[in-house]
Amino acid sequence: MSASLNLISEWQHEKVLFVNNEKAGLHAIIAVHNTKLGPAIGGCRLYPYHHLGDALFDVLRLSRGMSHKNAAAGLPCGGAKGVIMASPLQKSEALFEAFGEAVESLGGCYYTAEDVNTTVDDMKQIMHKTQYVVGREDVSGDPSPFTAYGAFCGIKAIANKLNGTDDLHGVKIALQGLGHVGFDLCKQLVDAGAEMIVSTHSNRKNMDIAVKEWGCKEVTDEELYGVECDILSPNALGATINYTTLPLLKCRAVAGAANNQLLDDACGQALHDKGILYAPDFIINAGGVINAGQEAFTVYDRQKVLKQIENIYNTISWIIDESKATGIPEGVIARNFAEDRIKNGL
Amino acid sequence: MSASLNLISEWQHEKVLFVNNEKAGLHAIIAVHNTKLGPAIGGCRLYPYHHLGDALFDVLRLSRGMSHKNAAAGLPCGGAKGVIMASPLQKSEALFEAFGEAVESLGGCYYTAEDVNTTVDDMKQIMHKTQYVVGREDVSGDPSPFTAYGAFCGIKAIANKLNGTDDLHGVKIALQGLGHVGFDLCKQLVDAGAEMIVSTHSNRKNMDIAVKEWGCKEVTDEELYGVECDILSPNALGATINYTTLPLLKCRAVAGAANNQLLDDACGQALHDKGILYAPDFIINAGGVINAGQEAFTVYDRQKVLKQIENIYNTISWIIDESKATGIPEGVIARNFAEDRIKNGL
Repeated sequence: MSASLNLISEWQHEKVLFVNNEKAGLHAIIAVHNTKLGPAIGGCRLYPYHHLGDALFDVLRLSRGMSHKNAAAGLPCGGAKGVIMASPLQKSEALFEAFGEAVESLGGCYYTAEDVNTTVDDMKQIMHKTQYVVGREDVSGDPSPFTAYGAFCGIKAIANKLNGTDDLHGVKIALQGLGHVGFDLCKQLVDAGAEMIVSTHSNRKNMDIAVKEWGCKEVTDEELYGVECDILSPNALGATINYTTLPLLKCRAVAGAANNQLLDDACGQALHDKGILYAPDFIINAGGVINAGQEAFTVYDRQKVLKQIENIYNTISWIIDESKATGIPEGVIARNFAEDRIKNGL
Repeated sequence: MSASLNLISEWQHEKVLFVNNEKAGLHAIIAVHNTKLGPAIGGCRLYPYHHLGDALFDVLRLSRGMSHKNAAAGLPCGGAKGVIMASPLQKSEALFEAFGEAVESLGGCYYTAEDVNTTVDDMKQIMHKTQYVVGREDVSGDPSPFTAYGAFCGIKAIANKLNGTDDLHGVKIALQGLGHVGFDLCKQLVDAGAEMIVSTHSNRKNMDIAVKEWGCKEVTDEELYGVECDILSPNALGATINYTTLPLLKCRAVAGAANNQLLDDACGQALHDKGILYAPDFIINAGGVINAGQEAFTVYDRQKVLKQIENIYNTISWIIDESKATGIPEGVIARNFAEDRIKNGL
């Protein structure tokens, strides 16, 4: 994984901190990508990486992604990420306290938060050692409804570009994933009158509600990609737009809350060439961090947060217009937009 | 250089911090190997590394070496090292201030100091941003005389093992290097009556003094290895005991202040098999850090420092005896001694 190491230079991460705390059993990396716009925010992911190089690659990639996400969302904060090399079975108070010490040692240039395999309870243990934690239960709370609301706003912007109206009645949406975010988003789309076709990996209980109570149609993940629909909405896996799924797609647009939906830039170009609109993932799924971010820098104000999340509608609309005008894929427009803000300020 | 990355795990470095400060032009790594015995001390080396992996390998290796050196010297401190990826021509106040900020951000678990290509003046600039600096000009001062004095004590211990007396009159010593440490050590050996054969790479001026004023005999580096003598004393290059020089050696012992004298453990075994005594480098050259270390933790007391440095005589004597008793090469004895102290305390 020499490649990973070189990315520290190539992507110009401001700080990358490796921590081995033998006593606490903690092996972690915190990557602070950029703090030009303000202190960096990014979740703490826990995952049983096999190799240090894999963990490094993940934390470098994800922290850079957070710089883009936060800048594009107009937040006065930079991007960072933490990864703990452990399985969920290895969680302990000592582990999270040691991680909290590492966060504290960065002196406030990094605010941590919940992420894959970490919970509000884990954050409480981290907070024994540091105050640099956002998404606290007693302040901004669970970020999922905010992420879902942002995705809902983004989908309305996409629908408007497709049909000339925000009205979702009769708009056919193939939605993947009924986790915290996907389930919430699905309900909002149902309530707005959309025609829902849904797949999920694991949330059988949520699927039963979606099918029996909300009238959604269930399909498998494999079937979902080929559904003829207005919008394909990925809300679970990463890299759903790849060389296997691309030929199957019969949607007019892709817009969902999952992270890293495009396997690579070439897949974004391929979507664009097929005339399928794309709501860049880190723009449409920024609701959660917009919510948590407020906590770090100002007195938490839910109404202000909602208003800022609703701005995702405008950003997505602008990106689609810009992509049409320039012929550049939406993902590239979004990344350039973010990098320009990091370079020149909000 | 995936190898370097894996060493972070293998050698269990407590913290490894990568810093890129674009504005200041700083690209640096600080590795804190171990702080079990106390805050970690280690110099800040400046070097134009070609690859980040090379810098990482160096800082990991050197910081671990400092853990061993400090523990073996009985200092209540751990081992660390800093490397700045730059050429001496790229030195600037901004560069060292940015490095100082990185040192400060580690909250006192790392004390920096002069090292290869950094000077007392550079330390002053680092101190604009942090107080975690040792070897200050106005306190413990230039470490070189202390390193030289420690090496002198270690050479006396070796002479005693060879000849049954500390008296250096007539003892034939082939000394490599007339830099700060080597020049000082050479003078002490001359004053003690040793018969000196000397080589140097670059200090023509010092060589002239050594030859004309002190009566030393000058040879080339290549000739030096083959000089029939009691003690070969490397005080310049690393890895002088290697597969090229080993067959040439006609000394009875190797004892000098250079770092990393053995190319690898096998070379230490080869020395041992030839019946040549070896004063482990990180034991005999600890005088400088013994001096600087005192500065970090207690009111500086020169007499106390000198006494502690003189203890190098006892440590070297014990290691030679232990090596003879067990058949284990001196370098391995020394490393085990240090690791045992790190594990179980001083």
